[in-house]
Amino acid sequence: MTTLEHLIEALSLAQKAERKNIKGNPFVGAIVVDENNNIIGTGYHKIWGEKHAEVYAIEEALAHTPDLTKCSLYVTLEPCSHHGKTPPCTDLIIKSGIKKVFIGSLDPNHKVSGFQLLKQKGIDIVLIELKEALQLNKVFFTNQKKQRPFVRLKIAATIAGKMADYEADSKWITNTKSRAYVHSNIRTEVDAILSTAKTVIDDQATLNIRTENAPSKEVNAVIIDRTGSILKAENASLPIFYQRKYTKIYIVTAPNTIAPTKPLPSNIEIIETTFNSNKEIDVTILGKQLLEKGIYSVLVEAGEIFSSYLLSKKWVDELDYFIGSKILLDNQAVTGSAVSKNIVLDQEIPLTLLSSMPFDNDIYLHYAINES
Amino acid sequence: MTTLEHLIEALSLAQKAERKNIKGNPFVGAIVVDENNNIIGTGYHKIWGEKHAEVYAIEEALAHTPDLTKCSLYVTLEPCSHHGKTPPCTDLIIKSGIKKVFIGSLDPNHKVSGFQLLKQKGIDIVLIELKEALQLNKVFFTNQKKQRPFVRLKIAATIAGKMADYEADSKWITNTKSRAYVHSNIRTEVDAILSTAKTVIDDQATLNIRTENAPSKEVNAVIIDRTGSILKAENASLPIFYQRKYTKIYIVTAPNTIAPTKPLPSNIEIIETTFNSNKEIDVTILGKQLLEKGIYSVLVEAGEIFSSYLLSKKWVDELDYFIGSKILLDNQAVTGSAVSKNIVLDQEIPLTLLSSMPFDNDIYLHYAINES
Repeated sequence: MTTLEHLIEALSLAQKAERKNIKGNPFVGAIVVDENNNIIGTGYHKIWGEKHAEVYAIEEALAHTPDLTKCSLYVTLEPCSHHGKTPPCTDLIIKSGIKKVFIGSLDPNHKVSGFQLLKQKGIDIVLIELKEALQLNKVFFTNQKKQRPFVRLKIAATIAGKMADYEADSKWITNTKSRAYVHSNIRTEVDAILSTAKTVIDDQATLNIRTENAPSKEVNAVIIDRTGSILKAENASLPIFYQRKYTKIYIVTAPNTIAPTKPLPSNIEIIETTFNSNKEIDVTILGKQLLEKGIYSVLVEAGEIFSSYLLSKKWVDELDYFIGSKILLDNQAVTGSAVSKNIVLDQEIPLTLLSSMPFDNDIYLHYAINES
Repeated sequence: MTTLEHLIEALSLAQKAERKNIKGNPFVGAIVVDENNNIIGTGYHKIWGEKHAEVYAIEEALAHTPDLTKCSLYVTLEPCSHHGKTPPCTDLIIKSGIKKVFIGSLDPNHKVSGFQLLKQKGIDIVLIELKEALQLNKVFFTNQKKQRPFVRLKIAATIAGKMADYEADSKWITNTKSRAYVHSNIRTEVDAILSTAKTVIDDQATLNIRTENAPSKEVNAVIIDRTGSILKAENASLPIFYQRKYTKIYIVTAPNTIAPTKPLPSNIEIIETTFNSNKEIDVTILGKQLLEKGIYSVLVEAGEIFSSYLLSKKWVDELDYFIGSKILLDNQAVTGSAVSKNIVLDQEIPLTLLSSMPFDNDIYLHYAINES
């Protein structure tokens, strides 16, 4: 096996973990290979707060042979060098006697500098940055680098870029297959769905996961609601307030907005955030608050003004764009992504087309939003 | 071989013809099959005004055996029953003694009623309408039914449905691969490119076919230009006026608009058409005029107002929609398909997605516009 094949083997180990178990931690896989190119230790990070991939791999290798000085370690992410929930992996690597380490991606966390530390200790370090390793941990890397959740934005539009007709009834835009895909393959991938009180109220949105022949599943909801309007008595029977066992509704308000006369139910939590004089939310603060709540990825399903605002604030990482099979000849229709006049004109956001998938006459376009 | 296989065989013969040779005539293929299921005659319509497919097939069969009474004829389009440029095919079929005819599609031309005529003569007629036979002659069928060219509309837009920025510089929207496809696979498929004087002047458009490593090719141009502005002296050096050997520029003006001081060059022709009080062209008249000029299919490449106008007039059969890989956060950008206030709101045009094709980060969506 070649170096690349060893790293790909480690990557496939990394993918064995489940997101719900590792939470905000990265997917990591590791293998130890002896001088005859035999794999003598394997491991992956399984559960948040528990052993790292390298630890499993090195412990297994040491059980096989006490001398690892002629062995190499392949790990998909730069080993940690700090005391977190577990001791630094660099200590174990140095102690094990391993002299060569291949790394599939660097850790953007500035507290992690395993690469430099191991190098200083005379260990031969080879970085082979794998696109797949970066892709696998896109949520983790975004959390670390941008101090906010990984954000996907869903837009359903007609061919002319209209997002909904002027009565805001957007349900007719895409077909049942497209909508089923959103439930089964997109809403399931995130820690929460983020929307605005206006959209949730206007659309009578439930924001859960509904698939055919299966009971509906809960999803955390984050509702941007500066004035806390969704908690008014008249909104008490909104579909969003369905019976929840495992999830919460986070209502994001301006500070000191809600003074509840009685305690809120345990599945409703208020997040107080700053809004500016234009009533626009401070997404920098919100991003950190959501990470603290364990929300590492969100799907935004909201109206055009809020969606465009997030785009203009570079708060979107991927676009889930559905085009319904109709042209709407209607001047009053809401356009797909106009912005409020406050936002600088001529801003251009470059996209990478990750995949496209037709659903009968609809088409689903999955884009990554390029760094700029 | 089954009935369907015989018809598909006839269909593949039909496709041997070249559009430039048959001009506005349909693609037609025919085979004669004897009682032992052997093909004893084949033919297809090759050249405008010359023998029909059935004639070739029956003549070949008759050369093989004088008695066709136990033979069947398979023909992809209903045989003609009128004296056009050639005698009616129904006469020949009856005279040949053939007792069974399989037809792959009906002729929408009301002068053609071969189906009924042959039936009345006691010939067993089976209509097996093949989607492929209809698709093959979509230009011909549209010409016959709608008395206008088959119209494809090209739109290049950003993800938000913006067609060009407010300076109308649309060149940046799609990438070079997308634009190359328009030249090599779309402009080559039509008899003319239709645009407006405004677009041709503003965009300094050439509207020819430019492909890599090949000399550029001419295409007929139809320019909607109510006031004949493009013929003003200041526009004499527009790229559209490139040296033409085989093609023409048709300038569509209101009646009695152009009074040239000297004769127009032979490759420029004026078509006088009615415009209404809103300066909108009467497309019903224009359609017939273009057919008379031998323009059976057009590609519209124009601005959003004219494009939307044609859509609202149900003058578009297919949409060639390119989405460039960017979002434009610009309120002043021209929207993809808005319409002038004159047009009835809430008009919805249903689409069928024929195919989708990514060009790097761009995507090309080819739609048929459904009849309504």
